[in-house]
Amino acid sequence: MKYYPVHAGYPSYAEVNSAVEAAFAEHGRGGVQMPPKVYVTFVGNGDFRTMPAYLPALGIAGVKVVNVHPHNRVRGLPTVMALTIIIDVETGAPRAIVNATELTAIRTGAAGAVAARYLAPRQSVTLGVIGAGRQAEALVEAMAAALTIEEILVWSRTEKSAEAFAARYSDYNARSLPIERACDCDVLTTTTPSTKPVVMADWVHEGTHINTIGADAPGKQELDPLLLLKAEVFVDDLSQAIHSGEINVPVSTGHYDPGRIAGTLGEVVIGKKGRSSPDAITVFDSTGLAIQDLAIAALVLGDDEGYELPFP
Amino acid sequence: MKYYPVHAGYPSYAEVNSAVEAAFAEHGRGGVQMPPKVYVTFVGNGDFRTMPAYLPALGIAGVKVVNVHPHNRVRGLPTVMALTIIIDVETGAPRAIVNATELTAIRTGAAGAVAARYLAPRQSVTLGVIGAGRQAEALVEAMAAALTIEEILVWSRTEKSAEAFAARYSDYNARSLPIERACDCDVLTTTTPSTKPVVMADWVHEGTHINTIGADAPGKQELDPLLLLKAEVFVDDLSQAIHSGEINVPVSTGHYDPGRIAGTLGEVVIGKKGRSSPDAITVFDSTGLAIQDLAIAALVLGDDEGYELPFP
Repeated sequence: MKYYPVHAGYPSYAEVNSAVEAAFAEHGRGGVQMPPKVYVTFVGNGDFRTMPAYLPALGIAGVKVVNVHPHNRVRGLPTVMALTIIIDVETGAPRAIVNATELTAIRTGAAGAVAARYLAPRQSVTLGVIGAGRQAEALVEAMAAALTIEEILVWSRTEKSAEAFAARYSDYNARSLPIERACDCDVLTTTTPSTKPVVMADWVHEGTHINTIGADAPGKQELDPLLLLKAEVFVDDLSQAIHSGEINVPVSTGHYDPGRIAGTLGEVVIGKKGRSSPDAITVFDSTGLAIQDLAIAALVLGDDEGYELPFP
Repeated sequence: MKYYPVHAGYPSYAEVNSAVEAAFAEHGRGGVQMPPKVYVTFVGNGDFRTMPAYLPALGIAGVKVVNVHPHNRVRGLPTVMALTIIIDVETGAPRAIVNATELTAIRTGAAGAVAARYLAPRQSVTLGVIGAGRQAEALVEAMAAALTIEEILVWSRTEKSAEAFAARYSDYNARSLPIERACDCDVLTTTTPSTKPVVMADWVHEGTHINTIGADAPGKQELDPLLLLKAEVFVDDLSQAIHSGEINVPVSTGHYDPGRIAGTLGEVVIGKKGRSSPDAITVFDSTGLAIQDLAIAALVLGDDEGYELPFP
């Protein structure tokens, strides 16, 4: 059994995008076992989630354990930290323990990139970025490995963060803008921790594809519910999206009927579903799947830098 | 973050019994979070189970990941292997990864010992042992730390195993006997992987306490259902027992009504429930709880022999 601390820049976004795409394709074919995430909550502190899965066609099984502790920033710790355990299918032995803290942001970025590649109106795009934290960076990097970014329009509640983000991505003609102008783009990605809509329906023009990433727990939302009603909404997983994705609040208040969901990203990847016309607004509601975590952790197993640990 | 490989003989059975008893007491008081075990199955090979929990009063949280691969013996590997990840309640960071392969047998033994201490008719006992594998050993060792063993009557389907077991525990006057005679005891423990009853109702006399350990998945059973109907049945956890414990088969076939269950071991430990008379036959239906795994893993954190691993 080996422990992989995972160093920055490995695996590459191109490798991750393709591994995550393969996992979604298996999901689309109905070929995965993925029980619902299990939450354990620490009242006043945060929670941790256990995410087991098995991809028979890819021979990968295991479980990610990940916390969300919003107050960690003041302690100088990441709010989200994770480990993935890879289980050998034949013997059940743990083969590897992978530090999945960075990988969690990367695999989420990859899901957005895969969604954009299949659902965006064109492959050379203006990218709107709402929220300028670590997850927004991972989305830009993953997207850059999947399609051509002509320019980036970034908005953040903290203007300074937006400006720093724009400076970091000056190679992609990134600019900090008011939110309404940042929404005037081909592919919009939202990564805020908001519980109230921040993107209004009127700001988004026909043909735009939107990746909503921020909502990952009951009560969180980033989009005007009217925008969801105008759009073709694709989810990563139906039950997770209803429980904790972008649609969770409007579904719970009766403003959005889950029967309207256009399909899953897996179905899109295998060509079973897709945008209905170039003018449609499409939304990918990302909650994060255990199969993404396994796909990316499996890439790390080739890394030489693991620590050999005695087991059993 | 540290990895603990766990060496034999540590922690001691006395320490483990008392930690496991404290965990059951918290369970009895309703003070734990313990979502149901989640199963992922590898058809033809085995399965793995994810078991998260949180004991607020003891400040312990985490998750055990454990497989069951019956064909591993021919590969020279344990059929059951496990890791427990301990999560820091304040920050959500993984504090430790503990090799829980040996600990799984030990904590199961401890549950049997705690049950016997509270439910056995006396504290100086004749111990009947049905099945002579690793789990039977752990039960004897845990029991020896909890009460006085006068003699051991052991039976195994493979007579050679029973004789080897008897030789190993000659200090406790252990003898290999026909199954019917091994059942003539004060405390009976069953640890076979049987799917058909092996212990008949007529073989067990009044006042006996029985620990049923073997049934840990749907379809497994060791006791004659008539014996369950004559007995006062205590479970570790109601929903797990109905799903995969000794009672799972008779419940599913309508031969045992879960409404007859006398209580949980946690309720027994806090004095809320117990055997109704010295003549009653009592059964403890053990399925194995995540809180036992956390209680024992927490004991290991004091061990000096951990490997420091870079994280996050």
